[in-house]
Amino acid sequence: MTRPTQPLTSRRACPALRWLAAAALAACALGAGAAPAREAPADAAGRRAYESVDPFIGTGGEGHTFPGAVVPFGMIQLSPDTEIQPRKQAYGWAAGYRYSDSSIVGFSHTHFSGTGHSDLGDVLLMPIAGEVKLERGDSKVARSGYRSRFRHDDEVAQPGYYAVTLDDYKIRAELTATERVGVHRYRFPKGQPAHVLVDLRTSLYDYPGKILWSRLRLRADGTVTGYRETRGWAPGRQLYFAMRFSRPLSGHGFHDTEADIAYKGFPPPGEKDPAQRAQIEGRQVVGSLDFADAEGKELIVKVSISPVSEDSAIANLDAEVPGWDFDGVRTQARASWTEALSAIDADAPEPMRKSFYTALYHTLMGPSLFMDSDGRYRGPDNAVHQAKGFRYHSTFSLWDTYRALHPLLTLVQPERRNNDFVNSLLASRRHSPYGILPVWSFHGQETWCMVGYHAVPVIADAYMKGIRGYDTNEALDAMVASASYGPYDGIAQYMQLGYVPIDEEGEAASKTLEYAFDDWTIARMAADMGRKDVAATFEKRAGNWKHAFDASSGFMRARKRDGAFREPFDPAASGYGTDYTEGNAWQYSWYVPQDVAGLIDAHGGDAKLVAKLDQVFDAKVDPKTFAHMEDITGLIGWYAHGNEPSHHVAYLYGYAGQPWRTQERLKQIMASQYAPRPDGLAGNDDLGQMSAWYVFTALGFYPVAPASNEYAIGRPFLPKATLNLSNGKRFTVVADGLDDAHTYIGAATLNGQPLDRSFLRHEEIMAGGELRFTMQATPNKAWASDPKRRPYSMSVRR
Amino acid sequence: MTRPTQPLTSRRACPALRWLAAAALAACALGAGAAPAREAPADAAGRRAYESVDPFIGTGGEGHTFPGAVVPFGMIQLSPDTEIQPRKQAYGWAAGYRYSDSSIVGFSHTHFSGTGHSDLGDVLLMPIAGEVKLERGDSKVARSGYRSRFRHDDEVAQPGYYAVTLDDYKIRAELTATERVGVHRYRFPKGQPAHVLVDLRTSLYDYPGKILWSRLRLRADGTVTGYRETRGWAPGRQLYFAMRFSRPLSGHGFHDTEADIAYKGFPPPGEKDPAQRAQIEGRQVVGSLDFADAEGKELIVKVSISPVSEDSAIANLDAEVPGWDFDGVRTQARASWTEALSAIDADAPEPMRKSFYTALYHTLMGPSLFMDSDGRYRGPDNAVHQAKGFRYHSTFSLWDTYRALHPLLTLVQPERRNNDFVNSLLASRRHSPYGILPVWSFHGQETWCMVGYHAVPVIADAYMKGIRGYDTNEALDAMVASASYGPYDGIAQYMQLGYVPIDEEGEAASKTLEYAFDDWTIARMAADMGRKDVAATFEKRAGNWKHAFDASSGFMRARKRDGAFREPFDPAASGYGTDYTEGNAWQYSWYVPQDVAGLIDAHGGDAKLVAKLDQVFDAKVDPKTFAHMEDITGLIGWYAHGNEPSHHVAYLYGYAGQPWRTQERLKQIMASQYAPRPDGLAGNDDLGQMSAWYVFTALGFYPVAPASNEYAIGRPFLPKATLNLSNGKRFTVVADGLDDAHTYIGAATLNGQPLDRSFLRHEEIMAGGELRFTMQATPNKAWASDPKRRPYSMSVRR
Repeated sequence: MTRPTQPLTSRRACPALRWLAAAALAACALGAGAAPAREAPADAAGRRAYESVDPFIGTGGEGHTFPGAVVPFGMIQLSPDTEIQPRKQAYGWAAGYRYSDSSIVGFSHTHFSGTGHSDLGDVLLMPIAGEVKLERGDSKVARSGYRSRFRHDDEVAQPGYYAVTLDDYKIRAELTATERVGVHRYRFPKGQPAHVLVDLRTSLYDYPGKILWSRLRLRADGTVTGYRETRGWAPGRQLYFAMRFSRPLSGHGFHDTEADIAYKGFPPPGEKDPAQRAQIEGRQVVGSLDFADAEGKELIVKVSISPVSEDSAIANLDAEVPGWDFDGVRTQARASWTEALSAIDADAPEPMRKSFYTALYHTLMGPSLFMDSDGRYRGPDNAVHQAKGFRYHSTFSLWDTYRALHPLLTLVQPERRNNDFVNSLLASRRHSPYGILPVWSFHGQETWCMVGYHAVPVIADAYMKGIRGYDTNEALDAMVASASYGPYDGIAQYMQLGYVPIDEEGEAASKTLEYAFDDWTIARMAADMGRKDVAATFEKRAGNWKHAFDASSGFMRARKRDGAFREPFDPAASGYGTDYTEGNAWQYSWYVPQDVAGLIDAHGGDAKLVAKLDQVFDAKVDPKTFAHMEDITGLIGWYAHGNEPSHHVAYLYGYAGQPWRTQERLKQIMASQYAPRPDGLAGNDDLGQMSAWYVFTALGFYPVAPASNEYAIGRPFLPKATLNLSNGKRFTVVADGLDDAHTYIGAATLNGQPLDRSFLRHEEIMAGGELRFTMQATPNKAWASDPKRRPYSMSVRR
Repeated sequence: MTRPTQPLTSRRACPALRWLAAAALAACALGAGAAPAREAPADAAGRRAYESVDPFIGTGGEGHTFPGAVVPFGMIQLSPDTEIQPRKQAYGWAAGYRYSDSSIVGFSHTHFSGTGHSDLGDVLLMPIAGEVKLERGDSKVARSGYRSRFRHDDEVAQPGYYAVTLDDYKIRAELTATERVGVHRYRFPKGQPAHVLVDLRTSLYDYPGKILWSRLRLRADGTVTGYRETRGWAPGRQLYFAMRFSRPLSGHGFHDTEADIAYKGFPPPGEKDPAQRAQIEGRQVVGSLDFADAEGKELIVKVSISPVSEDSAIANLDAEVPGWDFDGVRTQARASWTEALSAIDADAPEPMRKSFYTALYHTLMGPSLFMDSDGRYRGPDNAVHQAKGFRYHSTFSLWDTYRALHPLLTLVQPERRNNDFVNSLLASRRHSPYGILPVWSFHGQETWCMVGYHAVPVIADAYMKGIRGYDTNEALDAMVASASYGPYDGIAQYMQLGYVPIDEEGEAASKTLEYAFDDWTIARMAADMGRKDVAATFEKRAGNWKHAFDASSGFMRARKRDGAFREPFDPAASGYGTDYTEGNAWQYSWYVPQDVAGLIDAHGGDAKLVAKLDQVFDAKVDPKTFAHMEDITGLIGWYAHGNEPSHHVAYLYGYAGQPWRTQERLKQIMASQYAPRPDGLAGNDDLGQMSAWYVFTALGFYPVAPASNEYAIGRPFLPKATLNLSNGKRFTVVADGLDDAHTYIGAATLNGQPLDRSFLRHEEIMAGGELRFTMQATPNKAWASDPKRRPYSMSVRR
C-alpha cells in the first residue's frame, strides 16, 4: 500500500493526533491499511488524474459519449450537438455529437452518456453573429442555416469544460456547468449583430410529433424561461428551464414555425410581430434573442433546468450561479472532478493512464441528480414530490449498470451518493403507478427499456456491502413487489412455471436467466435480514436458470408453456423475436453468475465449460450476423464486448479452475476493445458500464455476481493503483514486474500473506491493505486452480 | 320595503338587542331601510325561488346554457353532452347539450354557461349496460356506439341536480355536485354487465390535435386518476382529475385509439392486454371500468378535478364528499342555491317568476372557483400558485360581464365573493407573462378573446361601490398597466394617436370606444384615491371616443393613421375586417356610456339622438345581413339583443329626456327576447350577462355605466321585488298598478319622497328602502325629462 511520504509522527502535532497517527501506522503494520483520515489527495496526483481525462474518447465509433461540460452526476449535461437526426438515423447521434461531423447545430443541456437508444437534447442554444436563420440548414452548404462549421483543432474538452470556435460566425464558445446550471461564454466578433437562438423544436432521437407542447417566455427582468413536454423514450416528459444573460437584451423574436395547426386560438399580444411577443406556446417554438451590446464582446448565458416549474428553474439558477464568474464556475467544476477522480490513484504510463481516467470519468455521470435545489422532483407518476433526507437521482440504465457500474460506485463514491441511488429507486417505486422499482428511467420517468428487474441487484449489492441509509424493510418489500408484478414481461408465468414461456412472452430465455439472478440477490438480502420466508422463496427461484438449460446442446434456450424448448433452434440467431435480448445463445448461455458451479456441473465439469467458452471466443463469425442489431458490437468470435451480456464471460475461466485463461482473454479484450481515441470504445458506454468494466479489469478484479460481496480476480493492467476508500482506508493493487511481456499472474499476496484464490472479498478491500501480484511471462496454471478456492464460494449452492 | 312581520321589539330580548332593534326601526322610519341583521330568508320564499328555476331555459336556440348540476360559482359543471361536434359545427353545442338532440354521449365535468366560442367538456363519463363500445356511434343508429337515446319526459333539471334515463341501457343516471366534486348515481338494469366509460378523447369545440396529452391511471385502492392537456380556446390547459366508486372495480380496459403514432416508446406492462394496464398515456385515451357487483344496483361515482395534480384532485374529492351520500350532496347543493337565490324576493306571477329566477340562477355560475381545497391554483403563466386570503376564481368573460353581470353580483353576492373576483384578477395579473389583467380567461388561462381591457371597469365598479378587500394601489397599478400595454390590440397607437388606427389594427372603432370607457373608470378610481396624475391622464383618454365620431354621418367609425376615416363606409357592414367587433356602425355608435351627454351634443341635441335611436330599432333589416356572424342575434331592427354592444342602448332614450321611450323599448325587448322555454334566450347567455340584463331590467334599473355608481331607471316588470343586500339591508321596488296595460311610469317615490329623475344611486340601494312606481297606461312624458335630472349626472363631463 502507499504510505504517506512524510510519516505523520514526524510533524509537530498535538498528542491526540500523534496517538491517532501512531495507531494508524500500527494498523498498517498489521496489514489493515488504515489511514487516520482520508487525506485530501495530493494536488499533483489530482491534477494528473484530471488532466489525463479525454472526454472525446467514445465520441466516435459507437461509444455514444459526449464531450461537453458536466459535473459528477450533474443534472445538466451541456454539450455541443453536431446533428439532430431523425429517428431512423438517430443511433449514431444518441449523445448529440459525433467526432466525424464538421458542423455544430447548437449546445443543448441534457445528454445521455453512452446510450444506444436516446432522447434529451433539451434547450438548444446557438450563438449567432449576423443574420438569424431559424432553421439548421444543410451541413454541406455554409450559412444555409444557423449551424456553423468547426474544427477539432480549436476544440478543448476537459471534465466540466468545453470550448470551440464556431467558424462561420467567428464566435468562441465556452461551456461549463454546476449541478443544475449550464454556463456559456460567447465571444462575439466585431462588425456583426450578436444573437442567441433558443430552439425548442429539436431533441435527440427526433421525429415529428415528439414535441407535445412548449413555451418560451421573456420576463420583465430579461430572464427567459420556458417549458417543454415531449413524447419520447419516456412517454410524457416535462422539463422547465430558465436563462439569464450578462448583458441586456436589445430585442427578441419568438416564432412558432408549425405549418399545419388545426386551430390556433385567439392571437396573443404581439402576434403579428415576433419582437413583441412576451410569450409563445406551441409545438414548434424557436426564439432569437438580440444583444446589441455584445458585439465584439463576451456574453455569459446561464441556463438552468427544473423538473418542477419555471420558477424552480430560476431558483436553481440563482442558488448555484448567482454571479457572472465563468472562470470561477469552471474552477469549481474542475475541483469537483479532481476530487471525484482522486478516488483512485492510478500509477500507469500513458496511454493507459488516459484510458483509465477517462473510463473513471465516464463512470461518474449517472445516475444523475434530478431534483431542484429545494428538494422537489418529478416521479414516474409525473407528479411533483419532495425529497426528504436524500437527493433524488434518475437516469438508471439498470440492465447495464447493475453489473459493474454500481459496484464500482460503491467503491469510489461516498456512501451518501450510493444511499441516494437506493433512496431514489425506493422513492420512484413509491410513486410508480405500477408499484415497482424502475426498469430504465430518466428524468424520473419510466421507459420500460430492456428486461429484468435490475434495481433489485443494485439495492441488494449496496445492502450486502453495508450501505443501508434507507428503510431496509421497505427496500426488501419493493424488491419482492418488483419481482412479483405479474403483468410485467411474463413474471406471472415465470412465477407459475419457473420460466418465462416463449410462446407467451418474447426473449424468454434472457428473461428467465436474468430474473433468476435478480431473485438470488433478493434471497441473499432477505437471509441477511432474517426474512426467512422471502429468502426461501427466492432461493428457490434463483435456481430457475436450470429450466433454460438445454443439456443436449449445452445452450440456454426458451421453453414453451408445454415445457418443450422452442424449435427450430439456431444458436446464432439474435434479435427481436428470438429467445434472447440483444444477443444469441452463444452470448447468453453463461448468464448464471449466482451459480457458476451449477453451470459447470450442468456442462459436465470444468473442462467442458472451458471448451465451450473457447468456442465462444475463437469462433469465426461473420460480422454481418449482427448487422440488424445495433447494440451487438465489439466482437471476438461470438463474444460481444460492446454489449453487456458478455461482460462477465471472460472471468468464467477462473471459476473453472483456469484463471490464466481469464488472464489471456482479458488481455485480448483490453487490447482490442478500448483505445484512447474518439472511436476507442467498442460499444455504447451505457452510462458508464463499459467504462466500469475497464476500471475494474484494469485494477485486476471484477464483480461477476453483484450482491455476492466477491470479486473475481482477473489480472492487473496497472503497475500500481490505490483505491482511496470513502471510509478513509486505502486499498492498493501492485503488479510487480508487469510489462507487455509479463502478463500472467505468477503469485499473489494480500497484505503480505500468500493469496491462492481467484477472488477477493469486499470486506478485504474495505479494510484497506495491499494486494500484490507478481507477474510473469508464462501462465502459472496451478495458481488458484483448487476448486475450493474459486470465486463461486459465494454461491448459495455451496 | 318589506318589514319584518313581527316587530323585533315584540320579542323577548335582552336590552341591548332591544336597543339595536329600536335603532333599526328608527332608521326605517327615516327611510334608511335598515334591518337589524339579514334574516335567513323565509323557507317558503326560498323554496319558491328554487323551484322557479328551469335550467333548460337557454339549452335550445342560441342560449348555450347547460342543464346539468352545479353549485353557485362551482368549479365543477357536471352536465350531459348530447353531441361532441367538430370545430366547424361546434357553435350550437358550446355547452355540450342541445335540447333538440335525442341522444346523450356522456356526462362531462366542465362547461361554460352561455358562451359563443367554447372548450371544456373534460372527463366524459358514460355508464353502459352490456357490451362496451369505445366510439360514440351514430345518433341515427341505436347501439352503434356508446351513446344512448333519451327522452325529455324522463329528464329532471333543478339547480344542483340533473337526472335522465338512458333508454338504450335502461340506466337511470342522476348528477349532483359540490364546488369541486361531481357525484353521479347510476342505477343499472339487471341482466347486463355494468360499466363506466371514461373518454379523454373528446372535448367541446373538438378538432384533431386538440388533445396534447392525457393519462389514465388505476391506483391500487381502486381510485382512478388522470390528467389532460389541451390546446383549445386556452392554448395549453392542464387539468387533473380523480374518481372513486361506491363499488369495487371488477375489471378495466385502458385503450389508446390513436392510429398513427410516429413513435410509441417501449411497451409498459400489460401493453398487450388493456385489462392489465395500470396506467395509459397518450393523445387518444379511453378507459372502460367494469362493476360486476353493480348489475341491477346503484353505483355512485365521485369525480373531482384539480388544476394542480392528481393528488390534489384526490384531496379535493375527499375534502368535499368523504362518503357515499348522494342525496345528502343533493340537499346541500339545493341549500346553496336556495340561499343564493334568496338574494332577491321577487313577487311575480308565472311565467315571469320562472324567467326571473332562471335568469338569476344563470348569473350565479361564473366567474367560477378554480382553486384546490388547499388554496393552490394554476395561473396564466401555467404555474401553480398559493392563494392567500382569497379564493381564486376564473372564467372571466369580461367583454360581456363587466356591463351588468358584475354590477349585479355586487348587489346579490356577499362582498367576500366580489373581493375574490378582484383578488383573482389581480393575482392573474401578477402571474401574467404580459403583466396585464385578464382579457377573457378560464381555468386560469388567457384566451385573448374579444377586445378591451374590461377587467378595469370590473375593478373600478367594485372599488367605487366600496368593495375594497384587496390592495387598492396594486389594483390601480394593474389597471394602468393593462391600459398601457402597447403590444395589445393597438394600445401603443391608441396612446399615441388617441384612437386605434384601422390600417394597423382591426376593429379599430370598437377598440377606441371601449378603451375610452375603460379609461374613464380608471380616472374615476384614481380621482377617488387621490392619484391626480393618473386621473388626469385617463380623464383625457376617456374623451377619445370623440376621435371615432364622424359628425357627417352620425356614426362611430375607424380612422387611419393619417387621421382620415377609412373609406368606403357601410354602416351595415359587420364582422371580421370591419371597423367593429361583432357589430356594425348601427350597433356600436352608442358606446359612450361615460359621456352620453357628450354624445347627445355631438349629435346635435336630444331630438337628434332619439331620432337616430329610433332608426336603430325601427329599421327593416334582412336577418341574412348577419348570417356570417354567429353572435349577432336577437334583432329588433339593427338592435341585436343577443350580443352585448346593444345592451345599454334602449336606456339611452332616458338620457335624452325621454324615459318613456326607454320604457317602450324595454317592453319590446323583454317580450321578444326572453321566454321561459328552452329556446327562450335570444343569444348566448355569456356567463350570465344576458340574464343579468334581464334581472336588472325586470327590477326597473340598469348599470349603463359601471363605475358611475348610478343605474339608469327603465321601468319595473315585477309587481314587487326585494333585494336582500349583503349588508343586511333591504331595498324593495314596488310597481303599483302594473299589468299588461299599465306599463308606463306615471310617478315614482324613493322612501316616500317623490323621485323625478331617471337614475338611481348605488348608495340609495345599499342604504335600503323602497322605490315605488305608479304605473299607468299612457306615458308621462314629463317625468324625469328635466336635463338636470337625467342619468348622465355621473359623467365626468358635468
